[in-house]
Formats: sequence, structure tokens, C-alpha cells
Amino acid sequence: MKSVVLVSGGLDSTTVLYYARSKGYKCYNIIFDYGQRHRKEIIAAEKISKLLKCPYYIIKINFPWQGSVLLNKNKKLPVHKINEIGKNIPTTYVPARNTIFISFAVSFAETINAKYIFIGANSIDYSGYPDCRQEYFMAFNKLISIGTKNGVEQKNKIEVIAPFVNMKKSEIIQLGLKLKVPFQLTWSCYEGKNKPCMKCDSCKLRNKAFKELGINDPLLI
Amino acid sequence: MKSVVLVSGGLDSTTVLYYARSKGYKCYNIIFDYGQRHRKEIIAAEKISKLLKCPYYIIKINFPWQGSVLLNKNKKLPVHKINEIGKNIPTTYVPARNTIFISFAVSFAETINAKYIFIGANSIDYSGYPDCRQEYFMAFNKLISIGTKNGVEQKNKIEVIAPFVNMKKSEIIQLGLKLKVPFQLTWSCYEGKNKPCMKCDSCKLRNKAFKELGINDPLLI
Repeated sequence: MKSVVLVSGGLDSTTVLYYARSKGYKCYNIIFDYGQRHRKEIIAAEKISKLLKCPYYIIKINFPWQGSVLLNKNKKLPVHKINEIGKNIPTTYVPARNTIFISFAVSFAETINAKYIFIGANSIDYSGYPDCRQEYFMAFNKLISIGTKNGVEQKNKIEVIAPFVNMKKSEIIQLGLKLKVPFQLTWSCYEGKNKPCMKCDSCKLRNKAFKELGINDPLLI
Repeated sequence: MKSVVLVSGGLDSTTVLYYARSKGYKCYNIIFDYGQRHRKEIIAAEKISKLLKCPYYIIKINFPWQGSVLLNKNKKLPVHKINEIGKNIPTTYVPARNTIFISFAVSFAETINAKYIFIGANSIDYSGYPDCRQEYFMAFNKLISIGTKNGVEQKNKIEVIAPFVNMKKSEIIQLGLKLKVPFQLTWSCYEGKNKPCMKCDSCKLRNKAFKELGINDPLLI
């Protein structure tokens, strides 16, 4: 059975891709080139898709408005202490980002007759984005059932699945290790330098999770 | 107060734009260049936005998949009898089109701090698209309240408004006439020829509505 997978090149989405494959789904990946601060994560997502021989599309989005520091290189990334991350919605929040991404995934899924849309979002060790929570995905599934041909005709209803939504990042890594996810190929840092900056929220959450497991992040070796 | 308006160049969206302005909203328009069969409706939407001096953006979307005859010029448009239109979902249905469009509108609205998103959709004299019905817009508003910063923080919650959703097309035209909508500038035909084809669902629905009112469509004069 076909599934669409939202692949960002990061740790969570790469693991969800390996997870979906382990469940026997034929995965069709979507990668978004939406004006993020660097291309490293797009290159990572493409590399991983090729490695697994998944058909994939890169969707280019030109946001003419810039409601996020992730869309504007001239703005500084916020710096938070690790225990502050996720408590408030940070300036890296991109308005309606997941809503746009999942909308495209629904369009793709309905066109190729895929059943599921996998997304690696989680809301435990996360940045505090509202569109990463279970209730958000439930609301999206309701929207799909009302707003698509498949949904209305009650045949092959498309569903968004966020299997990691209530998992700690260290648990996601543990699952990834079992599934032989090549974490050294993934990129989580908001900056696109040679090495992860280790200062942004994304680096800090990733680092904390590897530390909890007592293992080294292969990306840093 | 600011509002975002989805403007397609057609009769309904142009009237909703005039309606939103008549209610005192400062309108920011979004026009989508999504690979439709012709550019006439985009040009119409742009002309109308300029006429009203509304700030506007044209969002370019490249669908790599083609789940609709509207996205593929080589496929024939369906021909229905007028009383058959809307009974089933036709081949002109574009999977998740309004979901993608409204997602962008939400992103724009949150960025510029707009309160409403106006859409001219209606589900009486319509083509049968599931994403044009009131229950769909209600589900979208639920999604917005859960999935956006404004929604979660309970401040300036964004709402999609489809004021014509339960109006007959002839009633929309009547309202448009009161609001002095320049119907001669609008374009509804799925084809992009010199004159409306009068054969596609969109032409037939428009023609029926003008006939019901006993007036001539100014576009045909």
C-alpha cells in the first residue's frame, strides 16, 4: 500500500520514513524547499530518499511574506536554555507551515491513491509549535474526510499519521537505531554551516536526546 | 481591520472582495497561479485587485502531479447537462485545492495580523467540489484555532468566512450588482479562449444565474 511521507532531512522525519517502510508501505516522499535558511536539510532529504529508492518530489514554495526568523536570514535565531524550549511558541515558528505541507501531501496522496501521510512531528522534546500536536493532526483528519473526494465518497480515506507525536526524542532515536536509520546523513540544525551550531533549539533538543541515551550523535563524530 | 481575500478572477470571488470592502475591511488579496488551463483568470484577478488598489500577491504553485483535468490541457473538460452539475464530483476537481489555498491564506493572515479570510465559495449552484461546503470551512476554522500561534494564544483568532456558501449564484450576482462589481472584468470559463465556451460547468452555472435574473452577462455583450 502506498503512503506519502513528509521528509525534511531531520532526525524525526527520516526515522518516520524508515518506520513506514518497516510497516510495508511503499513510500512517496515530499520535500519542501520553502525558503528555509539553508539547503543542507533539503540535500539531506534528497540523499535519504535516493538511498531508499523512494520516488520523491521537491515542492518549491516562495513565501512572499516573512513571518518567521527561519524565512529571514537577516534575523537572529533565538537562543533558549534547554529547559525553556517548547514552553512558548518561538520566533522560528512559521505561520501555517505544517498546514501548507500537509495540504500538498493530501493532494499528492489523493492523486496517487495513497492511504496514509506520515509525518515525524512530536510534541514532547519539541520547539513548541502548535502544528506538531496530536489534536492538530486529529483536526486535520477531520478536514480531509470532509474536504476530499475520497473522504466524501468514503473510499480509501486518507489519514495523517504522526506515530511519534507522544514519544520522547530519545525514544525516537532508539527506534531509529533498531531500524538502522543513517543518523549521520540527517540534518537538524537551523543553521546550514559545516557543523551543527549546537546553540539553536533544534541542536539542543537533538543533543539532549543522544546524551540521555549515553551515545554519540554520529553526525558529530 | 485587515482581511485576506482569495481572488480567482471569477464572479464569486470578485463579489466577495467587493463585499469585504463594503464591510470596511482593508483587503489583502491572494491569487494563485497553480497551473490552471489558462492565464485569463489570473490576469482578471490582478486587474480587479489593481482597480481596487488592494495589495496582492500571486502565489505560484507547481503541482508535479496532475489529479485533475484542470491541471492537464491535454485532457478534455467534461460536458454535463445543467441539472446534472454538482450531483457528483467531476473530473475538474483538483485534490485539496482549497486546502492548499486556504493554508497559504492562513500563513499570510497570521503574518500581517489579519482577522478574516474571505472566500467566495458556494455550494448551491456549484460544481460539486467537497471543499466548497460550509462544514468544510467549519472544520478548517477548528484546524486554525488549534494549529496557529494566534489560535493557541487566543488572540486575534483567524477565521475563514464564506458569506455566499448557501446563496444561489443569482443572489450573489444581485448582491454584486448592488456593490457595483465589474462583472465584465471577471472570468469564469475553464477554457481561456477569446469568449467563454458556454459548454463547461462554470459557464453553464454562470449563464443560468444571469438568465434567472433576466439580465445579460456583461461579459457576453
